[in-house]
Amino acid sequence: MFYIVGLGLSDERDITVKGLEAVKSCQRVYLEAYTSILMVEKEKLEKYYGCEVIIADREMVETESDAILADAENINVAFLVVGDPYGATTHTDLYLRARELNIPVKVIHNASIMNAIGACGLQLYNYGQTISMVFFTETWRPDSFYDKIKENRQIGLHTLCLLDIKVKEQSIENMARGRLIYEPPRYMTVNQAVEQLLEIEDKRQEGVYHRETIGVGIARVGSDDQVIKAGTLEQLLTADFGAPLHSLVLAGDRMHFLEADMLRQFAIDKDVFDEVVAKHYNI
Amino acid sequence: MFYIVGLGLSDERDITVKGLEAVKSCQRVYLEAYTSILMVEKEKLEKYYGCEVIIADREMVETESDAILADAENINVAFLVVGDPYGATTHTDLYLRARELNIPVKVIHNASIMNAIGACGLQLYNYGQTISMVFFTETWRPDSFYDKIKENRQIGLHTLCLLDIKVKEQSIENMARGRLIYEPPRYMTVNQAVEQLLEIEDKRQEGVYHRETIGVGIARVGSDDQVIKAGTLEQLLTADFGAPLHSLVLAGDRMHFLEADMLRQFAIDKDVFDEVVAKHYNI
Repeated sequence: MFYIVGLGLSDERDITVKGLEAVKSCQRVYLEAYTSILMVEKEKLEKYYGCEVIIADREMVETESDAILADAENINVAFLVVGDPYGATTHTDLYLRARELNIPVKVIHNASIMNAIGACGLQLYNYGQTISMVFFTETWRPDSFYDKIKENRQIGLHTLCLLDIKVKEQSIENMARGRLIYEPPRYMTVNQAVEQLLEIEDKRQEGVYHRETIGVGIARVGSDDQVIKAGTLEQLLTADFGAPLHSLVLAGDRMHFLEADMLRQFAIDKDVFDEVVAKHYNI
Repeated sequence: MFYIVGLGLSDERDITVKGLEAVKSCQRVYLEAYTSILMVEKEKLEKYYGCEVIIADREMVETESDAILADAENINVAFLVVGDPYGATTHTDLYLRARELNIPVKVIHNASIMNAIGACGLQLYNYGQTISMVFFTETWRPDSFYDKIKENRQIGLHTLCLLDIKVKEQSIENMARGRLIYEPPRYMTVNQAVEQLLEIEDKRQEGVYHRETIGVGIARVGSDDQVIKAGTLEQLLTADFGAPLHSLVLAGDRMHFLEADMLRQFAIDKDVFDEVVAKHYNI
């Protein structure tokens, strides 16, 4: 059996009982470690599961899927994914490849940012499409997210922005020279995401959002030191969220008063929050 | 401490390790049993947790929240929710009420239909707002979902339709006479949902969707007998999905070819699927 097991969001105990039992039955255990990260070390997971955990980077998952799946028709193999297994397309590929090879597959679900973001108080059914925000470079500042946010905001919906993580990336120079030297990991902060959002609004000037649009930053969701802060994008430019991972939500104009009530408890400044909500939101 | 614990989707072992430890530390344990259901009996849960489980119906949660929260500043109390705690607004009310009373609250996340629907192969970030479909009655056939689907489909997004469940409901006659007699529980099937969708399209005639629109029905997601079937709405009118709970997705026009590949494995009829995708989808 090939198990694809969601680990949830925060630490080793966020796995489900079913997931843990599956992992303990496995002869090989892989941990996907490039689309998201758990807040615990590999060694801690190994101790918890009582077995070795093999880190699977993007290269391994994309080019060595058959090695991951090897012999899974006879033994149990687990592929662990932070959040839920269906969070990233690469896991879908692995799933389809296993099916092609007639290997039985079982998916064990868990919380992911896509539903845990409900913690910020904006109702999940009022979200539009999700956007991904990548680190801008000197020469690459893709702004297709702007069109998606525009579509969401035109119909009043909230937008979840997933923020880039860079793990085991090579510099262009090292890549060109074929040197397997990797940059230190980087995780986009709420501040950086808001900066990039505002840069593109300043460039495109279509009024999709502005410095007084209400946003919600959320860090380390589901952990004991989870931080949620709601405020204007201007305020979120400088609010401190601490360690990764961070996510950002832009509140849509159709925000319900119950959603505003819930958000308000996370307001950076309740007076500013009330003023801006009264000014820009149809509540 | 007041714990709000997500149970996940299917059986007693879908709780997280963290959630189970929390429940076992509690002196009172409530199970919210009206916005969704788990596929196991209360008695099985009690045996698994080693304690009594109090069923909390809508009336209790909405009018007796202080009884649920009683003494939670001194003892541990758990409120169990199928799926993730942030799936329904009533849980938010309970959360806010606990905060008002200065009771510490801890939320333990889990998978919910809002992210587990990824199992059908359509990517979660391409979904628009979620709609709820209620059972039509002779005199009440609300069609506001139609406008929301229209908004989603105009920008090519998928729509998740959550289907009504009726638990512990009174008939109008019994309610009028004050008789506490409850109707047997009812769970909307994919077939019924599609029927209601088509009825409203026939009435409104705005061409938001049609009998050849691709839909995906999903039943008992996350369980061993999960069923996923993709096909035209016409096909889904009569496809058999078995026991509850059912959900439905309408595929948006922007469906990516990788999403179509994934969906295709669930096609009721692969030839019909290919033909309809070629005809109506921009792939």
